Amino acid sequence: MPGIKPGMTMEQEMEQGMTVEPAIDFARRHIGPSARDVASMLETVGAPSLDALIDEALPAAIRLNRPLDLPPPASEADALTHMRELAAQNQIFTSLIGQGYSGTILPTVILRNILENPAWYTAYTPYQPEISQGRLEALFNFQTMICDLTGLDVANASLLDEATAAAEAMALAERAGNTKSSAFFVDRNVHPQTLAVLRTRAEPLGWTLIVGDPMHDLDSADVFGALFQYPGTDGAITDIRPAIAALHAKGGVAVVAADILSLTLIASPGELGADIAIGSTQRFGVPMGYGGPHAAYMAVKDTFKRALPGRLVGLSVDSRGQPAYRLALQTREQHIRREKATSNICTAQVLLAVISSMYAVYHGPEGLVHIARTVHRRAAALAAGLRRLGFKPANENFFDTVTVTAEGAQRADILSRAQAERLNLRIGKTTLGIALDETTTSATVEAVWRAFGGALDYAEIERDAVDTLPASLARTGAFLTHPVFHAYRSETELLRYMRRLSDRDLALDRAMIPLGSCTMKLNATTEMIPLTWPEFGNIHPFVPKSQAAGYHALFARLEQWLAEITGYDAVSLQPNSGAQGEYAGLLAIRSYHAARGEAKRDVCLIPASAHGTNPASASMAGMKVVVVACDTNGNVDVADLRKKAETHADTLAAIMITYPSTHGVFEEAIREICDIVHAHGGQVYLDGANLNAQVGLARPGDYGADVSHLNLHKTFCIPHGGGGPGMGPIGVKKHLAPFLPLVNGEDIGAVSAAPYGSASILVISYLYILMMGAKGLRHATEAAILNANYIAKRLDAHFPVLYRNHNGRVAHECIVDPRPLKTTCGVTVDDIAKRLIDYGFHAPTMSFPVPGTLMIEPTESESKAEIDRFCDAMIAIRREIAQVEAGEFPIEASPLRYAPHTVHDIADDNWQRPYVRAQGCFPDDRSRQDKYWSPVGRVDNVYGDRNLVCSCPPVSTYAQAAE
Amino acid sequence: MPGIKPGMTMEQEMEQGMTVEPAIDFARRHIGPSARDVASMLETVGAPSLDALIDEALPAAIRLNRPLDLPPPASEADALTHMRELAAQNQIFTSLIGQGYSGTILPTVILRNILENPAWYTAYTPYQPEISQGRLEALFNFQTMICDLTGLDVANASLLDEATAAAEAMALAERAGNTKSSAFFVDRNVHPQTLAVLRTRAEPLGWTLIVGDPMHDLDSADVFGALFQYPGTDGAITDIRPAIAALHAKGGVAVVAADILSLTLIASPGELGADIAIGSTQRFGVPMGYGGPHAAYMAVKDTFKRALPGRLVGLSVDSRGQPAYRLALQTREQHIRREKATSNICTAQVLLAVISSMYAVYHGPEGLVHIARTVHRRAAALAAGLRRLGFKPANENFFDTVTVTAEGAQRADILSRAQAERLNLRIGKTTLGIALDETTTSATVEAVWRAFGGALDYAEIERDAVDTLPASLARTGAFLTHPVFHAYRSETELLRYMRRLSDRDLALDRAMIPLGSCTMKLNATTEMIPLTWPEFGNIHPFVPKSQAAGYHALFARLEQWLAEITGYDAVSLQPNSGAQGEYAGLLAIRSYHAARGEAKRDVCLIPASAHGTNPASASMAGMKVVVVACDTNGNVDVADLRKKAETHADTLAAIMITYPSTHGVFEEAIREICDIVHAHGGQVYLDGANLNAQVGLARPGDYGADVSHLNLHKTFCIPHGGGGPGMGPIGVKKHLAPFLPLVNGEDIGAVSAAPYGSASILVISYLYILMMGAKGLRHATEAAILNANYIAKRLDAHFPVLYRNHNGRVAHECIVDPRPLKTTCGVTVDDIAKRLIDYGFHAPTMSFPVPGTLMIEPTESESKAEIDRFCDAMIAIRREIAQVEAGEFPIEASPLRYAPHTVHDIADDNWQRPYVRAQGCFPDDRSRQDKYWSPVGRVDNVYGDRNLVCSCPPVSTYAQAAE
Repeated sequence: MPGIKPGMTMEQEMEQGMTVEPAIDFARRHIGPSARDVASMLETVGAPSLDALIDEALPAAIRLNRPLDLPPPASEADALTHMRELAAQNQIFTSLIGQGYSGTILPTVILRNILENPAWYTAYTPYQPEISQGRLEALFNFQTMICDLTGLDVANASLLDEATAAAEAMALAERAGNTKSSAFFVDRNVHPQTLAVLRTRAEPLGWTLIVGDPMHDLDSADVFGALFQYPGTDGAITDIRPAIAALHAKGGVAVVAADILSLTLIASPGELGADIAIGSTQRFGVPMGYGGPHAAYMAVKDTFKRALPGRLVGLSVDSRGQPAYRLALQTREQHIRREKATSNICTAQVLLAVISSMYAVYHGPEGLVHIARTVHRRAAALAAGLRRLGFKPANENFFDTVTVTAEGAQRADILSRAQAERLNLRIGKTTLGIALDETTTSATVEAVWRAFGGALDYAEIERDAVDTLPASLARTGAFLTHPVFHAYRSETELLRYMRRLSDRDLALDRAMIPLGSCTMKLNATTEMIPLTWPEFGNIHPFVPKSQAAGYHALFARLEQWLAEITGYDAVSLQPNSGAQGEYAGLLAIRSYHAARGEAKRDVCLIPASAHGTNPASASMAGMKVVVVACDTNGNVDVADLRKKAETHADTLAAIMITYPSTHGVFEEAIREICDIVHAHGGQVYLDGANLNAQVGLARPGDYGADVSHLNLHKTFCIPHGGGGPGMGPIGVKKHLAPFLPLVNGEDIGAVSAAPYGSASILVISYLYILMMGAKGLRHATEAAILNANYIAKRLDAHFPVLYRNHNGRVAHECIVDPRPLKTTCGVTVDDIAKRLIDYGFHAPTMSFPVPGTLMIEPTESESKAEIDRFCDAMIAIRREIAQVEAGEFPIEASPLRYAPHTVHDIADDNWQRPYVRAQGCFPDDRSRQDKYWSPVGRVDNVYGDRNLVCSCPPVSTYAQAAE
Repeated sequence: MPGIKPGMTMEQEMEQGMTVEPAIDFARRHIGPSARDVASMLETVGAPSLDALIDEALPAAIRLNRPLDLPPPASEADALTHMRELAAQNQIFTSLIGQGYSGTILPTVILRNILENPAWYTAYTPYQPEISQGRLEALFNFQTMICDLTGLDVANASLLDEATAAAEAMALAERAGNTKSSAFFVDRNVHPQTLAVLRTRAEPLGWTLIVGDPMHDLDSADVFGALFQYPGTDGAITDIRPAIAALHAKGGVAVVAADILSLTLIASPGELGADIAIGSTQRFGVPMGYGGPHAAYMAVKDTFKRALPGRLVGLSVDSRGQPAYRLALQTREQHIRREKATSNICTAQVLLAVISSMYAVYHGPEGLVHIARTVHRRAAALAAGLRRLGFKPANENFFDTVTVTAEGAQRADILSRAQAERLNLRIGKTTLGIALDETTTSATVEAVWRAFGGALDYAEIERDAVDTLPASLARTGAFLTHPVFHAYRSETELLRYMRRLSDRDLALDRAMIPLGSCTMKLNATTEMIPLTWPEFGNIHPFVPKSQAAGYHALFARLEQWLAEITGYDAVSLQPNSGAQGEYAGLLAIRSYHAARGEAKRDVCLIPASAHGTNPASASMAGMKVVVVACDTNGNVDVADLRKKAETHADTLAAIMITYPSTHGVFEEAIREICDIVHAHGGQVYLDGANLNAQVGLARPGDYGADVSHLNLHKTFCIPHGGGGPGMGPIGVKKHLAPFLPLVNGEDIGAVSAAPYGSASILVISYLYILMMGAKGLRHATEAAILNANYIAKRLDAHFPVLYRNHNGRVAHECIVDPRPLKTTCGVTVDDIAKRLIDYGFHAPTMSFPVPGTLMIEPTESESKAEIDRFCDAMIAIRREIAQVEAGEFPIEASPLRYAPHTVHDIADDNWQRPYVRAQGCFPDDRSRQDKYWSPVGRVDNVYGDRNLVCSCPPVSTYAQAAE
């Protein structure tokens, strides 16, 4: 299979007889610039060859001087054949395990038109609200659904999973509770993975967990809050109102983890008195995927809304006073708790939250009730049958889960027969659990009975079975009364609603999204295809490993490949976001020090240019943040680093450094930086956010780093999904390997609910590496660096490029600086960003890492044509700024300030602006022919200037606290 | 599984404890109006119940008074499980059969974003060019590709398959040739299915086929034209230039059937002197699908362009003088050959032509050459290996197909080993053929060698193998030089190009398409899903039946269900369009008469209101058309019918009648009409175009019809694909069953290339029936009739409804009449149609069957909300017409005449119109919020007033000829 030979077209290769294989080179499809484009761009940047450019950009000292040891690249067709073989190794049993994961039916119209539709899955987080109105509305629906079902006032736009949502709730309770306690009570009937994550998160913060029966043990506990599972993990529905009342009496905060489907039938957490409700919406249409991704939810009382972690969509108005959605309340806990962050949440599970919201839109309240009642009737019949067979259900009141005691030989027989029936039961120490769901049929119930030793007839048993929902906890009051949950009950109507929403948004399927630090590259179709095969979707995360052999073969290879790419010795696939990866990596460092008797090491050095998530993660891992200065070139001030490392030599735990830096430059001193930290007893955490600049060229594990997380949703092609899912696995050197998150057993902590995080989307990264091969990956990195340097070259004369290395080169992104223009004529970075919408572009990253600037990352997937279109737009905008400078119109009445222009603007007969309509809305050829129209005018957003890369605060806010 | 209980919501049903099953009722998702909507609409139309309305609309005499005998409806999830079982019964062998069908790789980005994307597959034929610019551009690319590769001047936008394209070419040659001959020469090296279809088509027209070796037998033949296969079906590449020159010398027309991929390497038909080239583009990315659908092509010399059958896209200009695509040259052969049509082509294979064009856009000329060269190298190596094994290839020069002689025991051994290797070979009488394709690997070639008895090493053999393309026939000159074939080589770029094109078009995923007679109903996602499974896609049409057991199980059930639905005794699934069905049905009638010694029966009665296709089909079947008058109510004039039947009693072959009539009314006299025809020795052909008004309520086979075709792309949910594919199977009464198209053997003729037509899309109709069940189908029909009557009621006061039955009811569509308004104020039906675009609607059918009117068919899938939006738009348009009538603005300066309004119109600062911009572009709420913008202004189309339902001429043009 031919690799890419820079500087030579396929035609040329063919003429030279170099290849007779079919044109199946995936790398050629993934990488934007053609060989001819590369030649032309090299000329522009003034480099004789791609190799020469890379030599100028990347320090020789850290270069990997051999090809990565990866299998030869597979064609797209061969890769899919291979995936079918892997898929065939996964066995789809009927999983009745429950424990927070249920079988569900994703309506195919949603499957095809959201989950498999690039208009939805390639979108970025809706920081630019004007071009995100579609997914913002869908998330608004999600929040409405959660508020209605939980009976609480404010819900966020989703969290990673139920277990981490519980941990976020615990942290919120600690801040909000009116107690001096540092203990948190956990219902012993909680899902075990939730307890595992709570243990992980509580320990570094010095909080104690008390696990017990809330009806008996809570009274005597001095706690800042408590978590109740409702229904319990064993299925029990308990009236927890007295326990909540008692907890409130002593100033504690009540958190209820509730099953979302059950809430259509039983009293909501709000009705029970809960302050916070959390849970999973997986069973609203999202395949189990061997653990994820899916969307967790959190809802709170109104009084807690400003402390709500995660993202929150709110309604605002645009420049014409029309309603417009936006991310609201950006002043959240990371912003207001400088001294001690207890959350590093940067993301949501937007794509999955959108799917679950559409599931509710499609079914409506009556449909959801219908599903819940049917599930419950089956469970009631199941229990009645089990009684008939001599098994007494453990609980009188349950929704969908029946637990019975079964031990010894009888238990073995049951499990053996269940295996034969291809059923997975929940296996407790002395109990067996059976959790039903939307996909359960009467035949399933009969199969369970056969496993339990009897041949019963479903219809006969069901006839006499009595409901087991407690009358005192019956759901009252309407929910999902908003018209959106009633208007789209036919497939045609839902299809059109989803299309209308997606048409409002700008995603990668329409234009370049040049967001610095976000690596918005191609999410190739072939990478996405196996994701929605049942063999990957319909696997419960806690099935016996033998049923997931295809998954485990994939994990093993992916871990090996990622280790080879990064130079590490071991990889954990568990962290299901970049921030989770940071946290898991720092915990590994912490445990390593502790294991060596150096638990006192708790100082974490963080350069001022770091992602804001870094200090938040360090705080959560029980570390103190010490900020290291940067020099005027944006590089780490090595002298300051040395000083700080010396000062804290006894307590130095780690440095967190991003490479290439968030300033978009390969710092020459990286090896020296690592050496200094090591010399003072610290470990090097290298943030993998910018790994896309290194793959195949340099490996963190080679030049001094001990641990990194890898944003698979950046470098390894998992689509951003409009703001999630992502995956943040970590790689570590051998000495840290024993401290990776556990996948089973109970030694080290778990950071995510599922052992392999959002396992199903690992398929995407696996296919990317498989199809690119070593040569393709290296060439992608080279192309990413070329593209960034090409942009830097083209834009520098118009907007100066802020940071370069000593050869005048940037890495894979560049920061351009319009700040002087603000002085000369008042134009803001916001004006430029919004004006780009008129050209059909998503803005670059605004004001990160340097306020008032724009950071541009093209990635390798953008073609020269698209990059030129973008540069032309930027240059044209600069010309308009010049018009303001020249006094042709004031900034307040300029097309820059009025941007984005909507159809309502230009259709206004009372147009009073000092420029013609066409200048406003058709600034270039593309906009004349296939115009993207912003559905709203500029959104009124008083928090706009805090609009960072993610929701975490600038690192400078931490400096004060630590010193 | 609960059916629909009209008048009761699911909530009500649940309250009454009527259902505990999950909400899995597909019919509820397929049908637009909810039970509540139905109640409200019944009130509007003034009917006490749905049953009462149906009683008023449909004559009691023809009612089916029992439920259809169909299996109970399956849920969407169960249906897909069932389809997976069927799929598992198809076995994917490596098919090396060739014969016009090849393995191919559809790039997944095209698969997902065109073939699986409702924006493409739910569009209608681009008769309204303004809202079809995207697919028109893609078809324009297709035509360009065909012209370039064939070396001819004008290509159409595709035909049904290679065999019918050959038949169309023969007919064109007959008209265009300068001879008196009625014989046509056919290369003996033609694909057998092509010969079969030519035989079928020639016989009724009185043409003789001479089959022979063109290099030897053509000299002595007196023919109007000749068909050459290039390369031959056995693989041979022959220099046919001398034969073509000789043919030309005697005034004959040269038709070359050429393999599209081979043309990247060998001289084009145009270079060889061909007048016409035809062939298949299947191997450009379209799965074989057990026979179809795929797009055939036809290209001609410039002098033949006005005789080119099928659709042709041309470039025109819009109201602002900007380029705009449109269907061109509507004056084609059906229009100009009144006395004796030799084509009834109404359609193209748009979706498949679009896919093949995108395949070429993605690969570009160098990529296609690369693929072709690779295939050829493999074939050359294959041949070399076979020689080594003692088999001498039959041909010195070949592209991808190697034929060898193998008889007796040796042959049996080879076939047995091939079976073990899971290879399908082409099995001739004494030969075996091996046709390679894009999917062939070196491992495949080695497997073939093993089947032929030797274990050879590919690399070793290939090293010494010499190319076998004749140097004298090398391709010269560039092709695909247009930028579109060079600009989209990365997946990102192609994805965005496809998105831009689809965004220009209006399809069912955005709005109702109320085209009368076109039945634009929901094409449900679940129905589409198995279509793209490899087990349905990757099956060659001529594999042993045992490898297609899943297909045959599906065919058998589908035939049985369609027979039950129509009241017929036998069904043929072969015709791959409605017109093909008509033709096949008339041939069955013709053969029936002939078999009874009544070959003289050749008169076909056709009511004046019939689809134009009807007389064209009758002509092709060797019948004379006699037109029967209609009365002022639009019904067949029974007295005139009786008179005509009596007049032609000795020669009466058939009547062709549409029911309900094309006027949208159930005629009371339908039984009487059938009886009259039968009494005079004729057969009744009932056009199934309007079957959607009858399913579950009445059956043609019960009330007198002998044969019908069923437009599966109307009533049975195959999407229109932007103008194809479709399927037109026919049902017949028992006496006609022996005369159905053959599927193997050689008794009666074949009408399509593949035995089961476009087999793969039968999956869609199968799933529709499976998921709807008897009750769902009947309710769909009722809802379709209700929707039409509701529209008739709402619009009548504004635009009078032209035809109703004696109870004042219409069937499933209605004709509204704006003709008086043309008199009062000059407004045309075109103005109304184009103004609807401003509201985001596709126009209803214009000027068919009554010039100057609009025929509206909502289907059951449209909700009350959407229908109301449409009616509101029509009423608002009527108010604007009133403004013209009142003199507020002249028609020439009205928003009606200026429609559709583009962004360029409203952005024009020099707006001089007597109405405000907002009136022009935001006529209703939806357009204010989620506006569809026509990408071009009104297209200048001098043929616009001839814009009928399909390209066939109005039936009145036939009256003269027959009498």
